[in-house]
Amino acid sequence: MNTSEPVIEDYYDYPEWDNRGVPTPPPVEVVVPCEPTADDSMFHICISAISLGVMLVIIVLARRGKPGRSPRKGVLDLLSPVNFLDPAQHKGLAAAVFGVLFCKLSLVFLAQNPLPFLKDSAPENKDYWKILSLFYYPALYYPLLACGTLRSQVGYVLGSLLSWSHLGVLVWQKVDCPKTPQMYKYYSLLASLPQIACLAFLSFQYPRLLLRSSKGDTETSASQDLNSSYYKDYVKKILKRKPPSKTSSSSKDKPKISKRLAEALKSYIYTQEEDFRFPLLLAVSAVITFIAIYQVALLLVTAVVPTLHIVRAGVNEDIAFLLAGFNIHLSEDRAEVVKIVVYYMWCVEVCYVSALTLSCLVSLLMLMRSMVLHRSNLKGLYKGQLNNAPSHQRGLFPSRPALVCWMGFTSYQAVLVCLAIVLQTMVFFICVLFAVFLVVIPILHGQNLILFHILRKTCPYWVTLILVVIIEHLAAQFAFVKKDAGTRDLNNRSALFLLSYLLFPVNILVGAVLGVLRIVVTALFNIAHLGRMDISLLNRRVETFDPGYRCYVHYLKTEVSQSHPVMKAFCGMLLKSAAQEGRAAQKMRDAEEGIKLVGPEKKYRVSSARRAQVRWQLLYTLVNNPSLVGTRKHFQRPSPEGVRNGAPNHTAAEGNAKGAVQKGSS
Amino acid sequence: MNTSEPVIEDYYDYPEWDNRGVPTPPPVEVVVPCEPTADDSMFHICISAISLGVMLVIIVLARRGKPGRSPRKGVLDLLSPVNFLDPAQHKGLAAAVFGVLFCKLSLVFLAQNPLPFLKDSAPENKDYWKILSLFYYPALYYPLLACGTLRSQVGYVLGSLLSWSHLGVLVWQKVDCPKTPQMYKYYSLLASLPQIACLAFLSFQYPRLLLRSSKGDTETSASQDLNSSYYKDYVKKILKRKPPSKTSSSSKDKPKISKRLAEALKSYIYTQEEDFRFPLLLAVSAVITFIAIYQVALLLVTAVVPTLHIVRAGVNEDIAFLLAGFNIHLSEDRAEVVKIVVYYMWCVEVCYVSALTLSCLVSLLMLMRSMVLHRSNLKGLYKGQLNNAPSHQRGLFPSRPALVCWMGFTSYQAVLVCLAIVLQTMVFFICVLFAVFLVVIPILHGQNLILFHILRKTCPYWVTLILVVIIEHLAAQFAFVKKDAGTRDLNNRSALFLLSYLLFPVNILVGAVLGVLRIVVTALFNIAHLGRMDISLLNRRVETFDPGYRCYVHYLKTEVSQSHPVMKAFCGMLLKSAAQEGRAAQKMRDAEEGIKLVGPEKKYRVSSARRAQVRWQLLYTLVNNPSLVGTRKHFQRPSPEGVRNGAPNHTAAEGNAKGAVQKGSS
Repeated sequence: MNTSEPVIEDYYDYPEWDNRGVPTPPPVEVVVPCEPTADDSMFHICISAISLGVMLVIIVLARRGKPGRSPRKGVLDLLSPVNFLDPAQHKGLAAAVFGVLFCKLSLVFLAQNPLPFLKDSAPENKDYWKILSLFYYPALYYPLLACGTLRSQVGYVLGSLLSWSHLGVLVWQKVDCPKTPQMYKYYSLLASLPQIACLAFLSFQYPRLLLRSSKGDTETSASQDLNSSYYKDYVKKILKRKPPSKTSSSSKDKPKISKRLAEALKSYIYTQEEDFRFPLLLAVSAVITFIAIYQVALLLVTAVVPTLHIVRAGVNEDIAFLLAGFNIHLSEDRAEVVKIVVYYMWCVEVCYVSALTLSCLVSLLMLMRSMVLHRSNLKGLYKGQLNNAPSHQRGLFPSRPALVCWMGFTSYQAVLVCLAIVLQTMVFFICVLFAVFLVVIPILHGQNLILFHILRKTCPYWVTLILVVIIEHLAAQFAFVKKDAGTRDLNNRSALFLLSYLLFPVNILVGAVLGVLRIVVTALFNIAHLGRMDISLLNRRVETFDPGYRCYVHYLKTEVSQSHPVMKAFCGMLLKSAAQEGRAAQKMRDAEEGIKLVGPEKKYRVSSARRAQVRWQLLYTLVNNPSLVGTRKHFQRPSPEGVRNGAPNHTAAEGNAKGAVQKGSS
Repeated sequence: MNTSEPVIEDYYDYPEWDNRGVPTPPPVEVVVPCEPTADDSMFHICISAISLGVMLVIIVLARRGKPGRSPRKGVLDLLSPVNFLDPAQHKGLAAAVFGVLFCKLSLVFLAQNPLPFLKDSAPENKDYWKILSLFYYPALYYPLLACGTLRSQVGYVLGSLLSWSHLGVLVWQKVDCPKTPQMYKYYSLLASLPQIACLAFLSFQYPRLLLRSSKGDTETSASQDLNSSYYKDYVKKILKRKPPSKTSSSSKDKPKISKRLAEALKSYIYTQEEDFRFPLLLAVSAVITFIAIYQVALLLVTAVVPTLHIVRAGVNEDIAFLLAGFNIHLSEDRAEVVKIVVYYMWCVEVCYVSALTLSCLVSLLMLMRSMVLHRSNLKGLYKGQLNNAPSHQRGLFPSRPALVCWMGFTSYQAVLVCLAIVLQTMVFFICVLFAVFLVVIPILHGQNLILFHILRKTCPYWVTLILVVIIEHLAAQFAFVKKDAGTRDLNNRSALFLLSYLLFPVNILVGAVLGVLRIVVTALFNIAHLGRMDISLLNRRVETFDPGYRCYVHYLKTEVSQSHPVMKAFCGMLLKSAAQEGRAAQKMRDAEEGIKLVGPEKKYRVSSARRAQVRWQLLYTLVNNPSLVGTRKHFQRPSPEGVRNGAPNHTAAEGNAKGAVQKGSS
């Protein structure tokens, strides 16, 4: 309404009425463009140079950093910002940097000058600069991530300095210029809040890492991919005997509704599980999604609500003439008309804000539910449940489309959530508007009861419909179903056929209700779940035609094929034993390269490799057939590796063995 | 547009221009209300009385008709219009009567006087009369169905007379008064065409049945439910050895796209299968759905197209002033403006008609596809595939909700199709309108190229997007996937991670395209499949929340639990043997086949019941485990019954036996 109003006001401009003593509305506050002391273009030139210097220092460090490691390998490592396929590492750094990047990008799309170097560039080139900025910002924030990759004290120091300077200048700018002329005066400030939060997290995290590494904490090396205890813990958890579920038989018969409701509710609430870690990309995606929800909600609020406020403040008695032009006469008194219009506009605003809140809540709920489903899908795929898990295609090898989907997953998820919130807000707004203006306001004021008039007029149909449905249910319950010796059978077939025939026309009415219900349920469900890639919006048979879901399936398969915890646990074990036999401990770095079977004595190597192979086959069999675990007798004896691994593992292995014995004897 | 136009025209009424020599549009043809010679109220009073008389005659006949049958049973049989749970019977009569009823009802909803007895009833009572008519018409057409139930010559004679009189009067009325003032002048005539067709079918079918029964054809009794040969044929078909599918291994690896396309196309085309008969309700539902498609399409055409014609004919030079009021200046010349407006309105009309045609075609295609799916679902359930078939709940017992759904299935399906066509037409109309006015007309006339301007302005984004997608695919294909010894693995992980990070912002653009694609695909799919109850519009996990699909599942389960062909074949066999033992030989009409266990001595009877039981268990086992059939040794030996059954069956049994031997030895 507010968009078309200026045109109408021009058309219905009655200048002679301006002098009748109607007070002109108070002028809107004008926000003058503000230049922060820390000039943005200057800052970007400096920080780009500094980042470049930092990168050079890091590269030099990487070339000669670790003794016994090829320099080329070190630089190559540095070129990968973070190992996205390692769920065992600390995810905070990567998530924070991605968050900073996403916030910056969401600001760039609305900004007048997308690249800060170019003040007041020609508008026809703006699109090109925007595209360039899509590549500039990732490069700008790259050192923030790379400083953590090195795992050295110098890297942490540089990272701390970089993140402090980013954070300091950003906060300084926002304190200098909290208001901008863009859209809503505080929009720019509010939109950078997540960015500030992410930078603050980085500024806190780098010194913490520095402190730890200076203390000589072994966490840095323990958090290395294959040496992480996570994989071993995961395998142990799998092999552990499950407590027998006592209520399985009784609950299968007929679970109580309250219990089922509680379970359904619980499945929407994400709680962390000790023995499971998300893949890095999923964790990053969750953070980005959260930020996306915030940004879109902020944009939707600031784009509409202040405008509505201004329009509401500007309503004066001219509105009565304007409405009269459309044959709408709200009241004889013009002041009364203004009051009514202002009230209605307030209602519209309330509807809008509640629709937006609702859609944000739905999105947050869906985010939590997604996390739960991601976990169960991943666990299912780890167990080899290719049928239950969302995947039709055979095999888990990485393929071209799968890799492309894997690369884009985080971005796709973020955009889908944004689209979903916009669409949800629109749909919910329309629904709430109808509810308020057709139900709530008519009831409150006792007039314009259009919906109730319609209901009263169609009352006979509703009564017939409800009566027929009741009759059908009663007849089915008491006349047509015969319970006999535990089974149910049909009874009174003639009467059933007669009723089916006679009620055919009335059932058409019932069918209309059912059809409308079907449309409403389907539309609401699909709109509510639009932002989730982990479920298909389509039918079971064609579910992979949904591009979002298809992408998710590809992503999941790539993830599982590359970071199966059991496989990683095995690789880690193999590497460790090889290293213990052969060389010094510092060789254990090259995790992903695969299985290094280095050893001075040929005999030793063969036997250990053989043993590892047998153990791998065994593990594989056990993971795929969990029921076998209890029946294994020789599982009780702790293996020599178990002893060598140290005390905690040893006792855990013994615990497992005892469990196996108990299961075997029972 | 046409609905709001009168108001605007009132507002912009420039009476002084009427005298400027602009010719007033030609007056619209006025159709005077027409009273047919065969007065409708008179006809209904007569035909109701006649129908009542016919029913009385039939009841009397039924009470003393069959010797050796209790009169109460005969009357009860008559009270059931048709056995809806017997797929073996002739379905024409029931489908035709349901069709007549449905056509009548679709006319009633728009009629001024829903019950023909009450001419010019008070409008406030109209709703009550409409509801009453929902019960009156099924009762009126009931004798048409009941005459066929009796399976006697008198019944057929009465049925012929009744259907002739219905048909005769209807045709007479339509010839007398082809035009009505309602909506479009020929609407009433066109809408009764399916009714006339159904009545004509009945008028032809009853004499045919009479002729057959007077010839002493045994078809009448053979078509009785349990004696039908259909069930036995079905069982034989199941037990027959399938030819081994030679291409199974090669087709599983990688079916060719052309072959897969051909198969997908074939799955949308329904072809009758010899050994499978639809349940009666499904057949009726298909006929009703077809009629519903016709009626809704007719209504949508006649409600809109004639109005558009009238509006188009009424466009004169005033339209230029009207458009100028909205600041639209199409041309300086007023005649030119008229030409342009008429051309645009013609375009709108073409769009509407093509959208309607498209939605009708989609509905027909969906109807065919439904039939194919119904069949495969039913066959799956017959085989006990509770998991594959659309059913979550355990067991196939009839229950209260299942029976209610079974009763209403036909009506629900018809209404859903109507709703679907209306919605589809709206959506397709909007899509076609956009396509025509944003793409086709601008290209044809070389102006108003809004869409192309937008495309050109956003060209850099599109180019970037396409380039990035190509780069990602190329990199994934050639750099990141390593083919090695038949498996594929990741390569160049560092580069992959770097690319994922750097392309994160650009992938947001790709994600936007993906999101829009997801919305479009989901919406179009769900709207196209709205009219089908046999698939759920919801996701796999929540598919039974879709009320239409839930109803279908219930319907299917009831149908299968009550008319499983193997069960019916067994029941028929058991009944026949009992009858043969007890009664006289004239009862043994069943020449075809079946196992005759005739024996005068008591010992024989006991053993025959026992043998039947064993055989039943065997059949059940074989049906559920088709792979066992080939391994049965004693299946080769033609049983004594097989020998007695006559040559054709004998050879068939031998063929089976040979197949079994071959399979057993191979």
